[in-house]
Amino acid sequence: MLKSRAAVAFAPNEPLQIVEVDVAAPRAGEVLVRIIATGVCHTDAYTLSGADSEGVFPTILGHEGGGIVKAVGEGVTSVAIGDHVIPLYTAECRECKFCKSGKTNLCSAVRATQGKGLMPDGTSRFSYQGKPIYHYMGCSTFSEYTVLPEVSLAKIPHEAPLEKVCLLGCGVTTGIGAVLNTAKVEAGATVAIFGLGGIGLAAIIGAKMANASRIIAIDINPAKFDVAKDLGATDFLNPLDYDKPIQDVIIELTDGGVDYSFECVGNVQLMRAALECTHKGWGESVVIGVAAAGQEISTRPFQLVTGRVWRGSAFGGVKGRTELPSYVEKAQKGEIPLDTFITHTMGLDEINLAFDLMRQGKSIRTVINFNS
Amino acid sequence: MLKSRAAVAFAPNEPLQIVEVDVAAPRAGEVLVRIIATGVCHTDAYTLSGADSEGVFPTILGHEGGGIVKAVGEGVTSVAIGDHVIPLYTAECRECKFCKSGKTNLCSAVRATQGKGLMPDGTSRFSYQGKPIYHYMGCSTFSEYTVLPEVSLAKIPHEAPLEKVCLLGCGVTTGIGAVLNTAKVEAGATVAIFGLGGIGLAAIIGAKMANASRIIAIDINPAKFDVAKDLGATDFLNPLDYDKPIQDVIIELTDGGVDYSFECVGNVQLMRAALECTHKGWGESVVIGVAAAGQEISTRPFQLVTGRVWRGSAFGGVKGRTELPSYVEKAQKGEIPLDTFITHTMGLDEINLAFDLMRQGKSIRTVINFNS
Repeated sequence: MLKSRAAVAFAPNEPLQIVEVDVAAPRAGEVLVRIIATGVCHTDAYTLSGADSEGVFPTILGHEGGGIVKAVGEGVTSVAIGDHVIPLYTAECRECKFCKSGKTNLCSAVRATQGKGLMPDGTSRFSYQGKPIYHYMGCSTFSEYTVLPEVSLAKIPHEAPLEKVCLLGCGVTTGIGAVLNTAKVEAGATVAIFGLGGIGLAAIIGAKMANASRIIAIDINPAKFDVAKDLGATDFLNPLDYDKPIQDVIIELTDGGVDYSFECVGNVQLMRAALECTHKGWGESVVIGVAAAGQEISTRPFQLVTGRVWRGSAFGGVKGRTELPSYVEKAQKGEIPLDTFITHTMGLDEINLAFDLMRQGKSIRTVINFNS
Repeated sequence: MLKSRAAVAFAPNEPLQIVEVDVAAPRAGEVLVRIIATGVCHTDAYTLSGADSEGVFPTILGHEGGGIVKAVGEGVTSVAIGDHVIPLYTAECRECKFCKSGKTNLCSAVRATQGKGLMPDGTSRFSYQGKPIYHYMGCSTFSEYTVLPEVSLAKIPHEAPLEKVCLLGCGVTTGIGAVLNTAKVEAGATVAIFGLGGIGLAAIIGAKMANASRIIAIDINPAKFDVAKDLGATDFLNPLDYDKPIQDVIIELTDGGVDYSFECVGNVQLMRAALECTHKGWGESVVIGVAAAGQEISTRPFQLVTGRVWRGSAFGGVKGRTELPSYVEKAQKGEIPLDTFITHTMGLDEINLAFDLMRQGKSIRTVINFNS
């Protein structure tokens, strides 16, 4: 049992409280990680709001971290003390039906317990004043020390700066992966990206990597267009500037629609627009954003029968342990400009400010640095 | 101008009338075809009902035919007098953006005028008592003589019996092609087929050709299960036998869902069930059925984000002029058992009976033989 500074969400819709929690030693197949830095993501805010039907409290949020292995439980072989790691909310066991399929990154190894805020053995490693605190997305990176299943850790090179590459634990990888892994955008293709938050901007990077010929950036906040342009977007549309549906605007602009579109917001109306702005015969639209519980997407089936494809992407289709190291490598080579995403850096004590900045649309990513 | 026996739909929801219409000579790029036989398809009945927003009257329905070239207009080079042909409601010009893309069979060459019931020059070749009659789906096979654009004809071998291979002009090819071309079902995959009409039965043939390991046939009319079994279906489900959604039944039956599903009815609730019965991570569902105007499909976006893919198929993704001859060849070799589909054969005078049998679910296909 060790003491760990952590930002605890004791109840929905209340500020996080910075307290010292107790962290139990890792059990068989588990790893104790000291988190060096963590991003704050919209999904954390979504769960904190109470709208997430899987959300349980009290919990330690955070799922976009970078850290160092401090202890390993029995049987752990793929990481050792001192290794640098990125926690994975999408595990990769390499043994389940999903991993073996070769068709998806949605490993099922720890899914059931992770969804309940527990470790695979059905218990928690966190407690406060003797009462258990739930894990979150299998990561809980808002704690200086956290425990994860071995299969939920990507080992990365020591040279990679954890206070930057932590962002590869969620948003940046999700956006790039959706373009490269899920849609497999080819050189010369036209692309529309709905929503220019962290994921949307990352999708622009992915489209640029894929050598897309045209990258249309769409947001109702035109202040985001400058960064989008720096990253490679070629066209900029604010739906509020038009008195017709944005899909019609895009179809006219592109002589029939784009080859690929990506919804990076979580708005079901935008998901429809994203599908319908793709080209008849071959257009593909990828849902990345997470919609609020109970919401549904709709369209006329004619949209599909005339050749459009509707798909989705989770963590960019990236297999964390196998593929994430290559993303870290790309970031180190400057191919993924992580600095562009880090608009703010602060200590754990200021984490509620990070949530405020995000809710107000004033940050792309705030990185919480445990050493600050 | 020549006289032709035809079944004319003078108004929605009225019986067809067998009359002698006038057929004008083919103009440049057009071909006069003598129809030997034609299937009667649900789409004909849908348009006759008045529910088709593109439906215009008076018209000559029918789009599942086989015939012989009787005259060619100026500039026609790909077919000659005496050639046996299957009319294509999905043309293949090989020159438009769609044909050149290599990604779709949805040729745009004659689409705009075809949708209005006219030839590409904006006029009709049919008239009755001096007044024009509209074409239908670019085919109008319920007339002994009809005129089509050259790009709307697949040339087939003389040996193929037109009174059978006419069925490859729509339903049979649509079902097989959706499995082989659109979904690209691989050997060993599990498949669910919703609706055991002509298209659904053809999809079973396609799944069998693809060596699917399990072919689940779903229909509320269990009388259809015998034919489905003969064609290769392995499991049979009547949704009325269960007090839970059919997608849940299929997910249980298959330990997580099928790899591929096909909606062959045109019912938007079934389209949802078909998507949701596919396996997390990789399941793909193909909409084949044509829903009534204005109807929409819906699902939770979570279904897509967790790896399912929703697509559609028109004419099975088959490029008519290029690929249909290979379907004819397969039928001649017995790989596509067309006889199974032909439950009735009759002359043109009895065509209203064919519609009645179809509406009552008593036929798979009735073939109208102009020589009967």
